[in-house]
Amino acid sequence: MPTILITNDDGVYAPGLLALKQAMASVGEVIVFAPDHNWSGAGHTKTLHKPLRADKVTLADGSEAYATSGAPSDCVALALLGLVPRRPDLVVSGINQGPNLGQDVTYSGTVAGAMEAVVFGIPAIAVSLDIKDAQPPDFGPIARFAARLATEVLQRGLPPNVLLNVNAPPLPEEQLRGVQVTRLGRRVYRDVLVARDDPRGRPYYWIGGDPPTGHEEAGTDIGALAQGYISVTPLNMDMTDCAFMAQVATWGLR
Amino acid sequence: MPTILITNDDGVYAPGLLALKQAMASVGEVIVFAPDHNWSGAGHTKTLHKPLRADKVTLADGSEAYATSGAPSDCVALALLGLVPRRPDLVVSGINQGPNLGQDVTYSGTVAGAMEAVVFGIPAIAVSLDIKDAQPPDFGPIARFAARLATEVLQRGLPPNVLLNVNAPPLPEEQLRGVQVTRLGRRVYRDVLVARDDPRGRPYYWIGGDPPTGHEEAGTDIGALAQGYISVTPLNMDMTDCAFMAQVATWGLR
Repeated sequence: MPTILITNDDGVYAPGLLALKQAMASVGEVIVFAPDHNWSGAGHTKTLHKPLRADKVTLADGSEAYATSGAPSDCVALALLGLVPRRPDLVVSGINQGPNLGQDVTYSGTVAGAMEAVVFGIPAIAVSLDIKDAQPPDFGPIARFAARLATEVLQRGLPPNVLLNVNAPPLPEEQLRGVQVTRLGRRVYRDVLVARDDPRGRPYYWIGGDPPTGHEEAGTDIGALAQGYISVTPLNMDMTDCAFMAQVATWGLR
Repeated sequence: MPTILITNDDGVYAPGLLALKQAMASVGEVIVFAPDHNWSGAGHTKTLHKPLRADKVTLADGSEAYATSGAPSDCVALALLGLVPRRPDLVVSGINQGPNLGQDVTYSGTVAGAMEAVVFGIPAIAVSLDIKDAQPPDFGPIARFAARLATEVLQRGLPPNVLLNVNAPPLPEEQLRGVQVTRLGRRVYRDVLVARDDPRGRPYYWIGGDPPTGHEEAGTDIGALAQGYISVTPLNMDMTDCAFMAQVATWGLR
């Protein structure tokens, strides 16, 4: 029976993690190693300047999990460096409350958890649910799809450096139109600077504004969600732009 | 005259930043916006859960800089969202004390500063110096090369989504063999789990071990440094693995 390590960036008690864990229990033995608080927007962090805690906690369904003081990528590193009894066959990160599309993947703590597994040579999947409005999200459909995809990945493997980034639209199962394999789309960030003064008159700044939007091009993750499809994007951690290498070589740099 | 925004991840008072700033003064008007403390290993962070400070400080050469409480990517975001009087033509991040090679680029605060500029559509360069031993590093050669490269980038531009990641070996100028345009190499991480007990008997964990090594393949950043060359690697933030997309499409996911 395969072993599946689960992490997330919303924190160990997030409902998306519980839904993912319960769905993955049909695929293999599940170990949960997640942050003790929210790390959204943390990026691919490696905490070297301070020590980390890892404590056993009990999830809402009575199962045992580890909560650490580190980022999602730290959770995966701690587990794989020796805090789990055996090497997992797969790492799944999520289910994030909110999408990770386009350039979001470079900021995303959820994706960073999967990246850290890839650094250790273990196949990994990041899973996110686009959440609209204030309705309590239904993680069921995307959790079941993640379990299905995990089965495929466990059978087929993934190439070195590659992880799968999965996003789902906020639709009930019967309204989902299917699955698209996509490339990353183009995000439009709507951040604005919000300047305020503290009670002592000194300025401080929020990165404020609205959530990002994006170009809903066909073939992209953003386009797939807009059309009601689950999106699966293979990401490669080798970010080399091979095509542009040839250009730079003509610049005559010494 | 072009405007160049400079950040780093070692903190605003780091000698590598000062050397970079002084070299860039020959290329354009320089604005420094850097973290008030070290953020090594921070990854591409976007701080949304707390406000940030940005205070004027004076560098060792008497020039003015901004020190912020955010990560390198936050520094660039704050500056570009409105804290600098006009849009910079180029962002340069560094000079980092230590290399950023292979998969390091996904963890690197230095590279993340450049990534954030790319998100804003501004060309960017990340600059790092491999540092051996405890000798005080000489940032001069790589700072001068960075200024030369900045001139090229200001003239030629960079494609959307692309930044240049520069690394230099710890050699005096006369021993540098030249410049290679490279792809990312394969890092070998040597992290180990170090478990300790606190004075109250509760366990805590360090991510310890030796610095990473790597495969010194010809054509890679790691190989170039090993042979005494400065390495320039174009990185593309579109991490889509287009080749593997076709594979996943044959998996029959619904």
